[in-house]
Amino acid sequence: MYDFKEVVKQFEQRLQQQSTFPQSPDNLYEPCRYLLALGAKRVRPALCVMGNELFGEIGEDTWHVATGIELFHNFTLIHDDIMDKAPLRRGNATVHAKYGLTAGILCGDVMCIQAYVQIAKAKKSLPELLQLFNTTAIEVCEGQQLDMDFESRSDVSIDEYINMIALKTSVLLACGLKMGAILGGASGANADKLYEFGKNVGIAFQLQDDYLDAFGDSEKLGKQNGGDIKANKKTYLLIKALQHANQLQHTAINALIDRDDEAKIPAMLSLYSNTGADEACREAVNYYSDLAFANLAEIDVPEERKKPLFELASYLLQRDK
Amino acid sequence: MYDFKEVVKQFEQRLQQQSTFPQSPDNLYEPCRYLLALGAKRVRPALCVMGNELFGEIGEDTWHVATGIELFHNFTLIHDDIMDKAPLRRGNATVHAKYGLTAGILCGDVMCIQAYVQIAKAKKSLPELLQLFNTTAIEVCEGQQLDMDFESRSDVSIDEYINMIALKTSVLLACGLKMGAILGGASGANADKLYEFGKNVGIAFQLQDDYLDAFGDSEKLGKQNGGDIKANKKTYLLIKALQHANQLQHTAINALIDRDDEAKIPAMLSLYSNTGADEACREAVNYYSDLAFANLAEIDVPEERKKPLFELASYLLQRDK
Repeated sequence: MYDFKEVVKQFEQRLQQQSTFPQSPDNLYEPCRYLLALGAKRVRPALCVMGNELFGEIGEDTWHVATGIELFHNFTLIHDDIMDKAPLRRGNATVHAKYGLTAGILCGDVMCIQAYVQIAKAKKSLPELLQLFNTTAIEVCEGQQLDMDFESRSDVSIDEYINMIALKTSVLLACGLKMGAILGGASGANADKLYEFGKNVGIAFQLQDDYLDAFGDSEKLGKQNGGDIKANKKTYLLIKALQHANQLQHTAINALIDRDDEAKIPAMLSLYSNTGADEACREAVNYYSDLAFANLAEIDVPEERKKPLFELASYLLQRDK
Repeated sequence: MYDFKEVVKQFEQRLQQQSTFPQSPDNLYEPCRYLLALGAKRVRPALCVMGNELFGEIGEDTWHVATGIELFHNFTLIHDDIMDKAPLRRGNATVHAKYGLTAGILCGDVMCIQAYVQIAKAKKSLPELLQLFNTTAIEVCEGQQLDMDFESRSDVSIDEYINMIALKTSVLLACGLKMGAILGGASGANADKLYEFGKNVGIAFQLQDDYLDAFGDSEKLGKQNGGDIKANKKTYLLIKALQHANQLQHTAINALIDRDDEAKIPAMLSLYSNTGADEACREAVNYYSDLAFANLAEIDVPEERKKPLFELASYLLQRDK
């Protein structure tokens, strides 16, 4: 059995060996190659391969599908970065910042289609794979739309927030795992449980991200705390704090949102603590982590086969960075 | 046998009956519905259905695939309009002009994926259909890239130009026809000839568009002549005029490109005539029309089955509007 590191290593080798993008037109494919070479964690394609390995020997189809998942993810990054006006991605200039808006749109488009090219290479189970992937791809777009809708709303509920992060982030993790499971010959019930595992890992990971952005060790994170607070991002912490706040705290939070000075971040952090939002967020991370590990436990394969996925989830959901 | 009008009527009915887009998130799907309702000619989906009808009875798969082709076409319109900074489409505000850049990007993305949802509904020949569609979709992106690359180049050859319009416009017509043919049970040879027919019709149509923009009857066209000249668009006429020009004419054309006054259009038109570019363009329209009709003639089905496609091509390539 391969562990995460070994799967990523093999995936990177295959990605470099195959020429995913043609040479010409260079202005179309150079930005695609640029982004793909920026050194990502490759969690999504690795999950796809590991989903296969849980049930059976890794086949060629799975490497293609894993590539499709990674291309789709990168396509969404390019377009999301345009919408978010983000200058940096993985520590480098975003595609639109480096090559312009037009290149960003069009190379995103072609990368989305290239994702389908890879998935269509699957010789087994194509209709089933395609239906799952299409559903997921639409959900990812809907999640991005909800995220943007939430920016201008002040009444977002916790349920709505969880739904949004599930659509925007988790379903693609879950989809990759399940596509791998299908290709590995999993039963329907096992494939569904693996999907739920991926979805819950994704939600827990995103909630942990919210928590660490506020309360994490900035040295371990490699960035300053409070980026979400500075940007007035609607996170689990902010929604929960508003929900739990008494009238005074509520007024204080809303007043802070309108400010943009040095004191904003520590003041908001203490409101997160005083309202118990920090504690609630940690509990939510644990709740979805527990669900995920319960999903994994329920999958009907020998326990030793689950070890790589168990280790990866434990690593992703470790509590300090 | 249905003719073009009847096919379009039936396609519109089906498009309205099925709810192609869910209600929510409204900010995502409202712009999609807006564009789709703007009353297009529906040439591409009609060709798909007519491609099926040429060989056999129209099946459910074909209506889905036709819808997919139309959604893909509309997706490219949304993103092209952003890249071209176009304010109007079909006489109404473009999606990004009406709903903003973010909506334009994201609703284009989801419409592209919805195209795949429709195509994936095909129960027959899915791998073959998908491979053709993927290849075509990539070619359309490449055509758009070349079109933009040509804006800043002064050495575009006629061959490069024909290749660009084939990719940007014709291959999707050809793809729709061939997907219909595949679903209609056509032999490989017949399906390939129908593809070539569509490609040549598309090239002839685009070249005719170049010609009519310059020399057409503005009353019949419903717009002023010379829009391409005003916008310094690289058309067949301009490329050919530069190619055929003597040194004086060459200097005159380049001087006109830098101008933006009333006299620019008539002056350029007379250079097009004096260099023989107008005549060359008409000949090129005829050349690709003749190729198209020869392709249609070679298809091995009873002649009466070809009548609707023959009539549609004749209508699209009629010589005065």
